[in-house]
Amino acid sequence: MAGLIKPLNSVYDQFRRLPGVGNKSALRLAYHIIDMPEEEVRRLAETLLQAKREIRFCKECFNLTDSDVCEICADTGRDHSMICVVEQPQDAMAMERSHGYTGVYHVLHGCLSPLDGIGPENLRIKELLFRLEKEDVKEVILATNSNVEGEATASYLAQLLRHQPVMVSRIARGLPMGGDLEYADEVTLAKALENRTPIKE
Amino acid sequence: MAGLIKPLNSVYDQFRRLPGVGNKSALRLAYHIIDMPEEEVRRLAETLLQAKREIRFCKECFNLTDSDVCEICADTGRDHSMICVVEQPQDAMAMERSHGYTGVYHVLHGCLSPLDGIGPENLRIKELLFRLEKEDVKEVILATNSNVEGEATASYLAQLLRHQPVMVSRIARGLPMGGDLEYADEVTLAKALENRTPIKE
Repeated sequence: MAGLIKPLNSVYDQFRRLPGVGNKSALRLAYHIIDMPEEEVRRLAETLLQAKREIRFCKECFNLTDSDVCEICADTGRDHSMICVVEQPQDAMAMERSHGYTGVYHVLHGCLSPLDGIGPENLRIKELLFRLEKEDVKEVILATNSNVEGEATASYLAQLLRHQPVMVSRIARGLPMGGDLEYADEVTLAKALENRTPIKE
Repeated sequence: MAGLIKPLNSVYDQFRRLPGVGNKSALRLAYHIIDMPEEEVRRLAETLLQAKREIRFCKECFNLTDSDVCEICADTGRDHSMICVVEQPQDAMAMERSHGYTGVYHVLHGCLSPLDGIGPENLRIKELLFRLEKEDVKEVILATNSNVEGEATASYLAQLLRHQPVMVSRIARGLPMGGDLEYADEVTLAKALENRTPIKE
């Protein structure tokens, strides 16, 4: 940015590259860094490097972990016969927050996106197939996002797994809880209608 | 945050402490750091530390600089007989962006705020008085913010400088350019009326 002295401008540039940080926030953060005690800046810098050094992928499910196997995979209290397939570690975390799932996960680390050059070989798909061979899995829940790429990835996986002796399901798509019909988009409404469930009396 | 592995949670905590970064942004940034190549995280960390190491205060005006004297104070083309007093380095930068000022600055590094325990001795006020003694200054422009603390700081300085052989002025307060009367607050409108200027014909 014009008018900034060089070291401050470098900080500004680095913050600008982070997601969701615009020009004004980057400038504010840069000035904040200069105001912080050196000890705190050092702690911030070290924390970033340490996290990058310590965090790796769980060798079972490829979620983030700081040991060999993540806490969920290591938990014998969870149902290891049910694998929920998600795109990103943050998706597994969102599922955990819902407190509605007791199985384990498999993190693909992305979704099929031919435009970005991301094909099946770039995702952790063969690792999923390997788990199905090795472990006694009864159900695979496809919990990729409900956008074009996520749906395509789910379809691809459903096709790939169709001859496997395992049940394959897709998370429901419909009206979000608390959502008004009036404000829902057509595709969501169509899905909600298509996936209607009978009410028992 | 619950459910985050420790190194990731540390990054999240560090980001949460930065101004304008909420829970969701901090989480997004933390995951982004894990996704970044190690080399880039290292560059980010080093940039912060380097800026903190290299940036110091200009010994004349206390603006930020990476040398002894800032570019503005070192610029002989600028009018050194006019000092614009601002609260923070970012305020001097905002003035520079307006391209309307050719004098030099003096950065107080704060404003009077008894509630936060900030008195005159915590600001760079005696350094300002020292400059007035040493240099041939004709005008001091008080450009502190137009809030309670900024106005109090300006009043205090005006009082302090009243016997000095120097003109003391305050930046105009009034309707912002492009501002509608309808949406302006009463205090701004009162100030705009009070400070009305005659139109020459």
